Amino acid sequence: MIIDCHGHYTTAPAELEAWRKQQIAAIGDTARAPARSALRISDDQIRESLENAQLRMQRERGTDLTIFSPRASFMAHHIGDATTSREWSQLCNDLVARVCGLYPDNFVGVCQLPQSPGVPPETCIPELERCVNELGFIGCNLNPDPSGGHWREPPLTDRWWYPLYEKMVELDVPAMVHVSTSCNPCFHATGAHYINADTTAFMQFLTGDLFRDFPALKFIIPHGGGAVPYHWGRYRGLAQDMKRPPLAEHLLRNVFFDTCVYHAPGIELLTRVIPVDNILFASEMVGAVRGIDPQTGHHYDDTRRYVDQMQALSADDRHKIFEGNARRVFGRLGSRTARSVNAGAKRG
Amino acid sequence: MIIDCHGHYTTAPAELEAWRKQQIAAIGDTARAPARSALRISDDQIRESLENAQLRMQRERGTDLTIFSPRASFMAHHIGDATTSREWSQLCNDLVARVCGLYPDNFVGVCQLPQSPGVPPETCIPELERCVNELGFIGCNLNPDPSGGHWREPPLTDRWWYPLYEKMVELDVPAMVHVSTSCNPCFHATGAHYINADTTAFMQFLTGDLFRDFPALKFIIPHGGGAVPYHWGRYRGLAQDMKRPPLAEHLLRNVFFDTCVYHAPGIELLTRVIPVDNILFASEMVGAVRGIDPQTGHHYDDTRRYVDQMQALSADDRHKIFEGNARRVFGRLGSRTARSVNAGAKRG
Repeated sequence: MIIDCHGHYTTAPAELEAWRKQQIAAIGDTARAPARSALRISDDQIRESLENAQLRMQRERGTDLTIFSPRASFMAHHIGDATTSREWSQLCNDLVARVCGLYPDNFVGVCQLPQSPGVPPETCIPELERCVNELGFIGCNLNPDPSGGHWREPPLTDRWWYPLYEKMVELDVPAMVHVSTSCNPCFHATGAHYINADTTAFMQFLTGDLFRDFPALKFIIPHGGGAVPYHWGRYRGLAQDMKRPPLAEHLLRNVFFDTCVYHAPGIELLTRVIPVDNILFASEMVGAVRGIDPQTGHHYDDTRRYVDQMQALSADDRHKIFEGNARRVFGRLGSRTARSVNAGAKRG
Repeated sequence: MIIDCHGHYTTAPAELEAWRKQQIAAIGDTARAPARSALRISDDQIRESLENAQLRMQRERGTDLTIFSPRASFMAHHIGDATTSREWSQLCNDLVARVCGLYPDNFVGVCQLPQSPGVPPETCIPELERCVNELGFIGCNLNPDPSGGHWREPPLTDRWWYPLYEKMVELDVPAMVHVSTSCNPCFHATGAHYINADTTAFMQFLTGDLFRDFPALKFIIPHGGGAVPYHWGRYRGLAQDMKRPPLAEHLLRNVFFDTCVYHAPGIELLTRVIPVDNILFASEMVGAVRGIDPQTGHHYDDTRRYVDQMQALSADDRHKIFEGNARRVFGRLGSRTARSVNAGAKRG
């Protein structure tokens, strides 16, 4: 089977955005804040939002299961305060849980964390526990820059983050390092901020000793690892100059890359320089790039085609990229079916 | 011949750093600021700083001419104010001019600009004119983030930068988009900030219409273009979704990439996806990565070897990458010898 480890609910019904706008309008006047129960979206609306989008594409592209989380660019942790972020995160996570309940074979959940700039990450633990223990989610998205492009939080290797990491290890959930929208006019969100964050996180890990303290902690760096595989020689050389251990030993037991790279030459580079055990199939559909590549006649984000084209990959390599590595990194999925994971959820 | 379009004077005698420390110590007490004339470095010291470093490597690697600028990480435009930056830039540029005077066949100059956070870029015009008209320099390094990792300046497509661009076009000099050190703890300088800036600048250009206003303006994006070639499908797709023209038409008459990518698979990707007319040979030696790659037995930054290995490049392609494109992008070099360019300098 083919597991897509990186999909966001980018096609949620418009009522979700309307609720968010109400919430934002009420910042500073909490009495006017909408209750979560004020969001009314029917099961049919959810079905409609997926049937002609993610589900159709799964069928067309021959992928089976998407590890699914709330829309990344909408997390916008910089808006309001920790309460704003908590309410919004719960709402978005609950909606993803409903998706998983309606299509238990097609989706399994990963949660948005209620981060807020300058607020200690341990405040996210209750929502992480709720999502994992009650909603059946198998991972989280961790934003290394909740300011949205100003980068004011300590690096991911700082003890600031450790309480959250302890809980991740205890729950056996990995994090995808994923920023949200940019409110810095220098950075286009999906064209610069996302990719920069991926590169930045990797270099933070390289510089630090995080995985000596947390040998079981796992991160997925999305968008093919930002610039990292393209500059793999640079990173190997920097680690060497800095007297760090070789990258395989220093980072690659804990850090994984997805395949959200939207052309065959990029996937070829990725699969050539990064060990196959560290690559997880992903497309991020429906996501940042929605068009059809005139050079191929297929969607840019139809990344399965690129992986299929890689002659150098053995059948075993392909199995790892498409399924095996995801089952290993997402320990709560493991060898189970998505349906059994979703059935275990106590979502009511 | 082989022109390396990206080298910094990273090996300058220690007196330079000592002067800078004095200057920094005197910030807020200008009476104590050192005069530029207080820097005493002999010609022999300059020769010694280069003979066993850049010059030896030119000989060993079989490259001929380095387009040479002050050390990028030392520009540190965030330190002090515009006066601090002007004094420091003049000093650094003068030192590069002395290098070019001593080795007129081996080096031709590119200047550091006296940028300062929040200060209009037109304040850099006098130093740019001095370097081009008096020192014989053929380009400049433009820092899109003089804050050093906080990204508070407008995007490079903003009219904020236009007076400088007008002067660049008038003088027929390109800019390499090059940040300096990072004072944001999130960003490792050479491992994250440099690469992020390259990616960011490209996306700024993609989003804007700068080259409609300045059809003759030219930028080199160093470090192989950051993440851009690896994600070329993403950028083509984003441009398409945003209804921008195809990238070849929209950007590639004005934007060029260097070959500072420190492994063969990266250079292969670069030369495969980016048109050969847009690639300029460079190594950045002696620079960010100084070690020897145990996988090859050669220096990571010996990028000539990677280009030499690319079977798909024709002799004409190689000529463009090694020499022709640099002569076209650096219009003041053009078909001239470096010696004649340097001899034309009025440096006295």
